[in-house]
Amino acid sequence: MSRQNVPDETIRRMPMYLRALLVCPAERKIVSSGELAEHLGLNAPQVRKDLSYFGAFGTPGVGYEVGALVERIRTIMGIQQAPRVALVGAGKLGRALVFFEGFKMYGFEIAAVFDKSQRKIGRKVGKLTVEPVSAIGCLGQRDIRMAILAVPADASQKAAEALAEAGVTGILNMTFCRLRLPAQVKVATIDAAMELGILPYYMNNPG
Amino acid sequence: MSRQNVPDETIRRMPMYLRALLVCPAERKIVSSGELAEHLGLNAPQVRKDLSYFGAFGTPGVGYEVGALVERIRTIMGIQQAPRVALVGAGKLGRALVFFEGFKMYGFEIAAVFDKSQRKIGRKVGKLTVEPVSAIGCLGQRDIRMAILAVPADASQKAAEALAEAGVTGILNMTFCRLRLPAQVKVATIDAAMELGILPYYMNNPG
Repeated sequence: MSRQNVPDETIRRMPMYLRALLVCPAERKIVSSGELAEHLGLNAPQVRKDLSYFGAFGTPGVGYEVGALVERIRTIMGIQQAPRVALVGAGKLGRALVFFEGFKMYGFEIAAVFDKSQRKIGRKVGKLTVEPVSAIGCLGQRDIRMAILAVPADASQKAAEALAEAGVTGILNMTFCRLRLPAQVKVATIDAAMELGILPYYMNNPG
Repeated sequence: MSRQNVPDETIRRMPMYLRALLVCPAERKIVSSGELAEHLGLNAPQVRKDLSYFGAFGTPGVGYEVGALVERIRTIMGIQQAPRVALVGAGKLGRALVFFEGFKMYGFEIAAVFDKSQRKIGRKVGKLTVEPVSAIGCLGQRDIRMAILAVPADASQKAAEALAEAGVTGILNMTFCRLRLPAQVKVATIDAAMELGILPYYMNNPG
């Protein structure tokens, strides 16, 4: 199944399925599409359709084998190898992210922390030592292809370019700037203020 | 224009338009749909269509008046009154959020911080003093209808229920649990791990 035929919405739900499976009690061996649907706030046919894109069909009337489905989804997502991730920005947000338990759940390892502040370089954040941003150029040799950008807005574009030049092709952008990068660099953006900003509309216009 | 007729995607872009306008240099009085489109990575007709849902038509061949459009979008979004927001959870993530500059950009004010840890209650976070979670019940009297949930996963459902009981109808959920709340409570969820988790698929399957 080529990427072109899989809807982005289905791809976006893959980590949600994984999370639903990972929080299953360890003794559970089988999970039904209905249970997965309930976790994601979907209906069961949608779940079956999503998973069928990747050839995971389950057993009709029974369900999916939890362990096998976890492995399948990890493979689809491309995270079976526990990707190593660089963090740029050791400010309040960056330091909080190092301790964020959600990354571990998916198998991500934050393996390097960079900052441009002399005051922060050399300091410990958890088990990591903050490195100067000039060391970003060596990420390729350290087999790190992903990064989280948690720097001040005015430093975001330059830091993103340094990451791209070092061979990083996946960036989680936590600044509120739009990054201009070569097309091969995939960027996901999180803006907490924007998510908060959407709520009042729905609070005022209950559907 | 009733809510039913406005696509969710258009609503989601409102804060992006606002951000694009707010970062305009102060001397700019007029902005074209093409410029807004470039900011959002859209095309100009889509921008004109989005804004026309709310009766903002601009001047053909000229553009939109920046100040007027900012006010119009703030009104659509329901944030013209600078909403006050409670933060539940004064851990690393919560404390980082108090200082997050993005909230101020949209006019949100974090007006209260709660935690259940005796060690944190009474401590200062910026200008705020951490209050016990038992004080969440008084949020209605303090005219706070929105909250950010940044507590550990196992405390999220209980804290969310306390917020809902106190009259909060908009919650930004930063835990990785799905909340079960009455339908009138609108929930937006941010999961940094999930966003990061989607990247490898696109890195491995460039479109």
